[in-house]
Amino acid sequence: MKNNKIVIIGSGNVAAHLAFVFKKADLNILQIQSRNYFNAEALAKIVDADAVSDLSKIDTTADYYFIAVSDKAICQVVSEMPLVSGIVVHTAGCVPISVLDKFSFYGSFYPLQTFTKGMEVDFEKIWLFIEGNNEKTTENLLDIASKISKHVEKICTEKRALLHLAATISCNFVNHLYAISQNILEEAGLSFDFIKPLIEETAQKACKITPYIAQTGPARRNDQEIMQCHLNKLVDNEQISDIYRKISDSISDVYRT
Amino acid sequence: MKNNKIVIIGSGNVAAHLAFVFKKADLNILQIQSRNYFNAEALAKIVDADAVSDLSKIDTTADYYFIAVSDKAICQVVSEMPLVSGIVVHTAGCVPISVLDKFSFYGSFYPLQTFTKGMEVDFEKIWLFIEGNNEKTTENLLDIASKISKHVEKICTEKRALLHLAATISCNFVNHLYAISQNILEEAGLSFDFIKPLIEETAQKACKITPYIAQTGPARRNDQEIMQCHLNKLVDNEQISDIYRKISDSISDVYRT
Repeated sequence: MKNNKIVIIGSGNVAAHLAFVFKKADLNILQIQSRNYFNAEALAKIVDADAVSDLSKIDTTADYYFIAVSDKAICQVVSEMPLVSGIVVHTAGCVPISVLDKFSFYGSFYPLQTFTKGMEVDFEKIWLFIEGNNEKTTENLLDIASKISKHVEKICTEKRALLHLAATISCNFVNHLYAISQNILEEAGLSFDFIKPLIEETAQKACKITPYIAQTGPARRNDQEIMQCHLNKLVDNEQISDIYRKISDSISDVYRT
Repeated sequence: MKNNKIVIIGSGNVAAHLAFVFKKADLNILQIQSRNYFNAEALAKIVDADAVSDLSKIDTTADYYFIAVSDKAICQVVSEMPLVSGIVVHTAGCVPISVLDKFSFYGSFYPLQTFTKGMEVDFEKIWLFIEGNNEKTTENLLDIASKISKHVEKICTEKRALLHLAATISCNFVNHLYAISQNILEEAGLSFDFIKPLIEETAQKACKITPYIAQTGPARRNDQEIMQCHLNKLVDNEQISDIYRKISDSISDVYRT
């Protein structure tokens, strides 16, 4: 696939980040498609591509089609797409590639990262996971992935779902714990800034020495008195108390002698 | 307190980190006390202090006594200490300063960080929280704290406990979620390395744009299909499924329109 002509379907966070990084790698983005033409146009302008809103109008000469829409919208997009002969991939963590089996060449192109509008992501540092419906497709996907990241792996649908689960826990759930902490602090008139160095150190330490060795705190020591002191502070919030108890029990179980 | 003569009681992680940082700031550490003389001696040698194991033998001429032992051991330490006239503080997050009220000058000196043996900590970046039993004590504590950190705040026992709770959630609980992810990955033959960039980005993003704005994932979108797909993977682990459901419910509740 010498030309690497690309069509991107979607104009949300993942679509935009992919468009920027493909452009940066000097790949040829033909079109950005979005149901909302203005969204497609806004992104298309930045990456020197054409905008299109109607899926039946997408360029059928492209080498790669990246479906970067919400998981729920993938099947609808597929049903509206013309039968292109290029490789069609989705970027979802938990959707089997078989949803694309109306095409001859299809697969998954899963970037393991949390994308937020306006926050630049260094693709060279993040892992890209590739699955093709046959060897040739996989090879082509590995080829284009290697142009934007140094960290590319092949993965099957089954394991990709486990990867997505692990990412949901380490990213989405972790972020929610940060939010819970922020609420506790701000209700007491304390600044979230106070725990930022702790948040960064905790992330770095786990990556460096493993979470098992890095674990500290009352649940690891099974210090019932301190945990009760904490639960007393949460007496008015059953949901948070419940999360506190479940996670503490799980920690204590790991370190029980 | 011109001389800043210090006695450190304890030889664990917090005691060692304090000893190193006081030494680095050129303060005068008279003694390191530990029930285990060899532990006291090992640390004392590094920071040019004397080692002592018997609490009744600690130097009574010091300006500051830092009780850096486990929360449960504080009361026993206090009962065995002679009635010194310097300022006596503990370093615990969830223990009231009143446990030290046999002394004339006492308080709390709480460094908000996770300490692990052998991992150096940059004290200049972390927050120190100070409470004294009277104005003069508080002033002296602020003075010595400012010699090792640029981030020093006064805090009462009640709010310190909330800070400790928030830290437990953002550090200890977060680290346990990392551990759960690592298990899921490794059981599937996948490397924990794959999610390290995600872990670091998640921490940085929350600090930069707030956890509320940074939240992504199936629970935020209330995507029941993906959440069920994840729960199917966890069907053999009731404890982890339970944590998955509780945190997802809590996220969905926040973003429910």
